[in-house]
Amino acid sequence: MRDRVRRLIALTRMVTRPPGATPSLSGMADALHVAKSTLSEDLALVREVLLEAGLGEIHTQVGVGGGVRFVERLDVDRVRDALDVFVRALDEPDRVTGPGFLYMTDLLFRPELVEPLGALLAERLVDRGAGLVATVETKGIPLALAVSRALSIPVVLIRRDNRLSEGSSLSINYLSGSSHRIQSMSLARRAPVRGARVLFVDDFLKAGGTARAASDLLREFEAEVVGVGVLVATASPAAKLVADVAACLLWQADAVAPTPWVVERLAASAVPGNCPGGP
Amino acid sequence: MRDRVRRLIALTRMVTRPPGATPSLSGMADALHVAKSTLSEDLALVREVLLEAGLGEIHTQVGVGGGVRFVERLDVDRVRDALDVFVRALDEPDRVTGPGFLYMTDLLFRPELVEPLGALLAERLVDRGAGLVATVETKGIPLALAVSRALSIPVVLIRRDNRLSEGSSLSINYLSGSSHRIQSMSLARRAPVRGARVLFVDDFLKAGGTARAASDLLREFEAEVVGVGVLVATASPAAKLVADVAACLLWQADAVAPTPWVVERLAASAVPGNCPGGP
Repeated sequence: MRDRVRRLIALTRMVTRPPGATPSLSGMADALHVAKSTLSEDLALVREVLLEAGLGEIHTQVGVGGGVRFVERLDVDRVRDALDVFVRALDEPDRVTGPGFLYMTDLLFRPELVEPLGALLAERLVDRGAGLVATVETKGIPLALAVSRALSIPVVLIRRDNRLSEGSSLSINYLSGSSHRIQSMSLARRAPVRGARVLFVDDFLKAGGTARAASDLLREFEAEVVGVGVLVATASPAAKLVADVAACLLWQADAVAPTPWVVERLAASAVPGNCPGGP
Repeated sequence: MRDRVRRLIALTRMVTRPPGATPSLSGMADALHVAKSTLSEDLALVREVLLEAGLGEIHTQVGVGGGVRFVERLDVDRVRDALDVFVRALDEPDRVTGPGFLYMTDLLFRPELVEPLGALLAERLVDRGAGLVATVETKGIPLALAVSRALSIPVVLIRRDNRLSEGSSLSINYLSGSSHRIQSMSLARRAPVRGARVLFVDDFLKAGGTARAASDLLREFEAEVVGVGVLVATASPAAKLVADVAACLLWQADAVAPTPWVVERLAASAVPGNCPGGP
């Protein structure tokens, strides 16, 4: 029995490893020196406990090359803490570096803040069935990577200009919705996006000109933007150039606050879950 | 005993969560409905099993605000697989988009490839005692985030040009070591780097002009580059503008191969570890 306890601890760690590390059932059985039938029993218990404790869900793929995939339950406390940091930071007057411009590069590159928010957007957009996350360089990259991590799908990077290292590229020019300046973006012809359903992720959305241009560019590759997720959207202009934007925060009249769906999502988790080993 | 088994499964997941989610001992005791003394015993067992199984190490901070920090053991198989993908991809002739230029943006934005390599560089450079990772936009960002994640320290982003959103910035111009073109980079004055020990991380290093310029720029902020980590370094020029570069791969005579320290690190792990519940 002591051996079983030790095996279950190791197994729990193995199956809850980061995405992309999907362990195979036979690999784990070998590593733990048990028959696959024993492993299946152990796995069933681990799955049940993690689900009950609200820690996440284990999905098992059977058959040849069968493995497990752990989908982490959204950690609502981390989401709330991260949102608080942004709300309070964006209240600091010296973060406004120009009309409609906020300095938040330092916060956007702190993984412990961006990862929970990426998981939040991933949960919101998972039903779009996307196979790719797209972002335009630069500040939205960490959030795009966080969404991609949560959904175990890759990121495609749209460049601001052509680079020699990208090889032959397709570019489009567009009028920025807020600044009315001509901007351009480009995507390498060999970027693996053809036919994909894509989530567009960025740090900031005002009129949505960048999101719209990215969508147009991706359409040239026969890829379709099926969802847009951003950290902050501005209240003005109210009419955006893309439909159906999932924003974590809304910037309105010099204050930043969580959007209604986020408030609702956080409230829905106020109900305490079952706890294993509890009374 | 059954309750204890269930508690240990939940506890294992709690303590091995991603960095930044450091759970407090009292928070976990509350969630699991046990006394802190019981939790300590459980934690000791989980620590022992994970260590024996080569899955990682739990560090406990005692006292007020005490919590645990899980440091994942380098997953050598994932590192080997990720290196293989780069080695094979860079062998494809159409990835060379110009003399000395490789298209690898698609691979650099796949978290399951970049995260193990970030962990490899983090392990190599952990003894430098850095408090920050710095990178220059754009392609090195995912690797920089992966190193930052493994070390639980933030990333500071150096921009290629001044942006209104960055506010007042300090810029430097420099001569690119390989192309002999004048380039520039800038860092927001309010970037939180003052006095920091910094790891510079990038995707690619030829002469090291960018790394050198970043180091010069950071010195203006009284921050010091104490280590350089890159995915690929070129064999030529042999004399780099920065000392002591940790590269995962070396590009030489149209072929890419793991560097000697990487080969050595992977070989050191060929010894099979203890397995819990094993014979």
